[in-house]
Amino acid sequence: MLEPRILKTLISIVGKEQVATEPADLLCYSYDATQQSFLPEVVVHPATAAEIAAIIKLANAELIPVFPRGAGSGFSGGSLPTKGGIVLTTERMDRILQIDEENLIAVVEPGVVTEQFQLAVEKVGLFYPPDPASLKFSTLGGNVAECAGGPRCVKYGVTKDYILGLEVITPTGDIITTGGPTMKGVVGYDLTKLLCGSEGTLGIISKIVIKLLPLPEAKKTMLVMFDSIDGAAQAVSAIIRHKIIPTTLEFMDGRTIDCVRQATGLDVPLAARALLIIEVDGDRDLLDKQAAKIAEIIRPLGVVETRIATTPAESEALWQIRRSVSASLRKVNPDKFNEDICVPRSKLPEMIRKIDVIAEKFSIPIVNFGHAGDGNIHVNIMIDKKVPGELEKAHHAIEEVFKGALDLGGTMSGEHGVGIAKAPYIPLEITPQAALYMKTLKKSLDPNNILNPGKIFLD
Amino acid sequence: MLEPRILKTLISIVGKEQVATEPADLLCYSYDATQQSFLPEVVVHPATAAEIAAIIKLANAELIPVFPRGAGSGFSGGSLPTKGGIVLTTERMDRILQIDEENLIAVVEPGVVTEQFQLAVEKVGLFYPPDPASLKFSTLGGNVAECAGGPRCVKYGVTKDYILGLEVITPTGDIITTGGPTMKGVVGYDLTKLLCGSEGTLGIISKIVIKLLPLPEAKKTMLVMFDSIDGAAQAVSAIIRHKIIPTTLEFMDGRTIDCVRQATGLDVPLAARALLIIEVDGDRDLLDKQAAKIAEIIRPLGVVETRIATTPAESEALWQIRRSVSASLRKVNPDKFNEDICVPRSKLPEMIRKIDVIAEKFSIPIVNFGHAGDGNIHVNIMIDKKVPGELEKAHHAIEEVFKGALDLGGTMSGEHGVGIAKAPYIPLEITPQAALYMKTLKKSLDPNNILNPGKIFLD
Repeated sequence: MLEPRILKTLISIVGKEQVATEPADLLCYSYDATQQSFLPEVVVHPATAAEIAAIIKLANAELIPVFPRGAGSGFSGGSLPTKGGIVLTTERMDRILQIDEENLIAVVEPGVVTEQFQLAVEKVGLFYPPDPASLKFSTLGGNVAECAGGPRCVKYGVTKDYILGLEVITPTGDIITTGGPTMKGVVGYDLTKLLCGSEGTLGIISKIVIKLLPLPEAKKTMLVMFDSIDGAAQAVSAIIRHKIIPTTLEFMDGRTIDCVRQATGLDVPLAARALLIIEVDGDRDLLDKQAAKIAEIIRPLGVVETRIATTPAESEALWQIRRSVSASLRKVNPDKFNEDICVPRSKLPEMIRKIDVIAEKFSIPIVNFGHAGDGNIHVNIMIDKKVPGELEKAHHAIEEVFKGALDLGGTMSGEHGVGIAKAPYIPLEITPQAALYMKTLKKSLDPNNILNPGKIFLD
Repeated sequence: MLEPRILKTLISIVGKEQVATEPADLLCYSYDATQQSFLPEVVVHPATAAEIAAIIKLANAELIPVFPRGAGSGFSGGSLPTKGGIVLTTERMDRILQIDEENLIAVVEPGVVTEQFQLAVEKVGLFYPPDPASLKFSTLGGNVAECAGGPRCVKYGVTKDYILGLEVITPTGDIITTGGPTMKGVVGYDLTKLLCGSEGTLGIISKIVIKLLPLPEAKKTMLVMFDSIDGAAQAVSAIIRHKIIPTTLEFMDGRTIDCVRQATGLDVPLAARALLIIEVDGDRDLLDKQAAKIAEIIRPLGVVETRIATTPAESEALWQIRRSVSASLRKVNPDKFNEDICVPRSKLPEMIRKIDVIAEKFSIPIVNFGHAGDGNIHVNIMIDKKVPGELEKAHHAIEEVFKGALDLGGTMSGEHGVGIAKAPYIPLEITPQAALYMKTLKKSLDPNNILNPGKIFLD
């Protein structure tokens, strides 16, 4: 519990209603999607950059760690208050400040919910592509801090690709702006991109300048079932090799299909041991041509059945299959580790085979789905924590999956970030020299190690 | 002149032929496109990352500044050896190491010439969009260090958007890799994007992993002449407002047209006081429709004449007009300052009017052309240095142009960088707090201030 004089100062900054210390309040801000929980000493709800700056200055003076938090929907523990201290939530900073149709940009506060923002810009014919699975509750500030991805990234790129500028409170409490509303800008270091994906360790985001695109005229969704995972993985490579980049190229392996079938009664033939959900978007006149070309490319690869949506409702029904995956897996298996390795796209079949070998070796079911077009696989290691030895086996399996991805030129995380979940594995991917460069940078900018300490790097 | 024992060590690292100290050699590496010249003490030509690392370690031990250099085609003095020391040129590291058609990526050394790389990937149906005006001689390493742009950036983005990973020698001589061949990756800080555009002050690039796109099927070029610059500027806004993003949206003002006419006998009616070169690319079937839509949008804005290329040769002829601008300006006026401010696209008409007022105020011809689609204007301040007082007037005019751009939410540089040319003006754009963040970062990574000192920030 923080000293009363510190709480008093916090109250003087944000007001009495915006400082919470009751156990129930603290509990609400103690967890994220990793299901881990750490109690903070206080939760503060600032409404302005100036308030955040004052909190950070206090934290530096008193050496109290600060844990910035969006919606707490992250999969790597990035927002968890692992060392107590202050949870600083941006929930109240939830205004869309500007949608500029002349320049195709928007300015928002960090607490705006991703989907709310997407709907707002789509209303005026604009498009914000990044679509993390948590978009119904995740915030844009959290998306920027973690550099969130999503199915559409294969064609449109990740959150970072849409961030033109930021207003940021530095780890020592200065308010700075980075980038701005221009399409280009090369004056000084690109702090905007450095801060994207820095997991709240280099600054707290208080405003975001976002680049938008014209909303594509139309889209076309197809569901293709394959008799083997290898066929599906090869299809991904084949489509890209033919120089077509669909909007999405999502895949589910046989075990995932089985889980969804078991949980939702999904109507998919038993012969389907893998499926792809492929969507193309753009000019209406082109889509039929593109879909036909894709169907032709993948035909020799063991296609069991192809369904092409002809109405938005049919398209929605196909997507529903993909969206029900997480809930279905949870229904079938109580505990799972959801990793999100990423490999060069062409290495997908090889990676899937490696994962099969690992699953066999440890006798643990491993279920794979995800953004195949990016080579980004959500590897779900299914265990029951109550069974002795299972947790340890899972950790060994995870390490082997990471090593397998790295051997193929891949990475341990395509979009979830490191947080605390992957911090122990950092030496597998980042050499001591590169880690030194990163830590030197962090230490110089946050000399008191106030901002989200213990994330990305353990020390 | 460096001490003989230091030269001896340099020779032991790269070999006798790769260490140059003759006055003629030093002169060759003393200048860039700013026409300024600073003599280095030695020029070294390493061939590997290990050699670069050894040079940097020596430089740290002996406190000798190192100035990395690509082709020396920069417009801001980024590669100039302003403090003598070592020019480290990457000319010998000019191999395209891999073009991976399966994954649409390439791996190159930093000394590969931009256009050579573009032609190599186009041969296999792939596309590297960034196209700085100097692409016939600029190197990819230099493009990354400065985050080069070009006409196609309006649709395709800048150099940074295509860089997936780097091999870098840190300012203290470690060899590290950042990013990699995957489409996504969020493990650790994004050093790749931090290093892009850091103007050789945070590391020396020794390898580059590049993202490629499928080569668009076709393109269509049109030249549209307007009776006023205002009409052309409004056309840019109108096209974007109608949610069309052409591949290029280049503009030339009346004075630019006059210069080109005078220098090359260009066949453009006198009534044309501004022109746009608009190109669209993509699926062949769509281009006529898009071009017609654009023509319809801009028709009310004072169009004098429209020429649409129907063959590649005709397209080339239209582009020739744009390409002859720099040489034409030089022919007409001996001295010029070429600035490259960038404003939000819709502010283009207002910015052009501001520049007119500044030209009038100082009685200096200012000629504008550039990448209108990005709001990126090449502002050419034409003087004769031999006339007393002209240089001083030019500097005042430049400062007012910068202030005008910043007042509109713009930046002093869209693609040329800061180098030494814009370093004195940094306080106009970057607050002391943001500058502190950047300088803290630089100082922590380069404690001896060895790497390209005096660039971006004067101190």
